[in-house]
Amino acid sequence: MSVALRSNMKLGVLGTGMVGNTIASKLVQLGHDVKMGSRTAGNAKAADWAKANGTHASQGTFGDAASFGEIVFNCTSGMNSLQALGLAGAANLRGKILVDVANALDFSKGMPPSLSVCNTDSLGEQIQRAFPETHVVKALNTVNCGVMVNPSIVPGDHDLFIAGNDAGSKKTVTQLLQQWFGWKSVVDVGDITAARATEMLLPIWVRLMGQLQTPNFNFKIVR
Amino acid sequence: MSVALRSNMKLGVLGTGMVGNTIASKLVQLGHDVKMGSRTAGNAKAADWAKANGTHASQGTFGDAASFGEIVFNCTSGMNSLQALGLAGAANLRGKILVDVANALDFSKGMPPSLSVCNTDSLGEQIQRAFPETHVVKALNTVNCGVMVNPSIVPGDHDLFIAGNDAGSKKTVTQLLQQWFGWKSVVDVGDITAARATEMLLPIWVRLMGQLQTPNFNFKIVR
Repeated sequence: MSVALRSNMKLGVLGTGMVGNTIASKLVQLGHDVKMGSRTAGNAKAADWAKANGTHASQGTFGDAASFGEIVFNCTSGMNSLQALGLAGAANLRGKILVDVANALDFSKGMPPSLSVCNTDSLGEQIQRAFPETHVVKALNTVNCGVMVNPSIVPGDHDLFIAGNDAGSKKTVTQLLQQWFGWKSVVDVGDITAARATEMLLPIWVRLMGQLQTPNFNFKIVR
Repeated sequence: MSVALRSNMKLGVLGTGMVGNTIASKLVQLGHDVKMGSRTAGNAKAADWAKANGTHASQGTFGDAASFGEIVFNCTSGMNSLQALGLAGAANLRGKILVDVANALDFSKGMPPSLSVCNTDSLGEQIQRAFPETHVVKALNTVNCGVMVNPSIVPGDHDLFIAGNDAGSKKTVTQLLQQWFGWKSVVDVGDITAARATEMLLPIWVRLMGQLQTPNFNFKIVR
C-alpha cells in the first residue's frame, strides 16, 4: 500500500523523547500538521513541544496521535513500544504505515545496553505481529536523531536501512526519507524479519559512539 | 602482550574450511611457516591444502597447530569453536595471541542463520573465559574470507573492527592486519565484550549479501 506524499499532511508521532521531538519538529518545519502522542493528554513535554512549534503542532494521547496521522511514527522507547501502541489502539493504526524508529535497548543490566529482543525475533516483528493490519516499516533506528532528519550532518555518502513486509509502504517511506529528510541512499534489507539485522546494529553503534565520542556518524556499505 | 612480527614466523591455523584455507594460504604466500589443524591429523582437506601450498605448509591436529603457532588463528565454525579449542589444548594456547575469526552462525533454525550466542555474551567472550591465559583478539569476522586477506577487493576506504582485553595483543594484531593483509583502517571497538557488537553485525551482513548478490562488500564508518 503506497501513500501519495503531499506538502501538508496530517502526521502522528508517538513518543515525547528526543527522537519524537526531533522528528515531530522536522515534520512541522516541512509544513505538515503533527500531533505528538503520549500516555496522557497534556503531558508536559508534549505540551511544551506543541507550544514551541506553532499552530501546526498539537498534542494528545497515543490514540489521538495515531488517529490523527495519515502516517504514524513510533518514537517511543523500544521496551515500552508494544504497550504504547496498544494504548494507541489497533483501530487507529489500521491500514496505515507505521514507521518504527524504536530500539529495544535494555539498560537494566548496566552499560552498554543489551537488547530486550533480538536474534530470532525483533521489535519490528513483534509490532507487526501485534498489529497485522498496520504496515510496519522499520527505519531510522540505526542513526542518532539529529542524523535522522538531517543526514548531511554526516558528510559524504552513507546508508539508511529499511525493512518491512509491504513493498508499497516501503516505497512511500523511502520517498519520505529522501524528499522530506534528505536521505540519498535508502537500502531495503528485506521483509520485517530483517528488523533483526538493523536492530542488532545497535551494539556496534553504541560502541562506536563511545570510541568516536560523537553520535554523528553512520554506516556506509562499500562494495 | 605484544609480539614482534617477523618475515618468517610459525603460525597455527585452526580449521580447514574456506576461512582457514584462505588465511593459511595467505600466510604461506607471505613467507611464513603455517600448520593447519583439524580434529584428526591427516584430514583430507588439510592434507590437500598442505600439498598445494609447498614446503612452508603443514598439517596436523588442532593441538599440533596450536603448539606450532607463535600466533594462532581460530577459523573453525563458531558453533564448534569451543570444542575445537578444547582439543587444541589450553597449554598449547597459553600466553599466545588467538585471533578469533569465528562467528557462531546457527543454521539449524533455517535461513537466514541466527547466532547461537549474542546480546549479553559472545563467542569471543566464551573463548576468553575458557582460555584465560590466552590473549583473544576478535578480528576479521565481519568480512568475507576473500576480503579478510585482500581488503582491496572492496575499493576505497572501509573499516575492520577488532576487540580484545589486552592492548599489546590488539596492537600486534592491528600491525598484522595492516602489514600482512593490507588493511588501512582497523578500528578498536573495545574489550572482548565488544565481540558482542561485531558478531551481531552478521545478521545485517547476511541480509546485505542477499541484496547485493556479492560477499565482497564492507562497512565504512562515516563521520
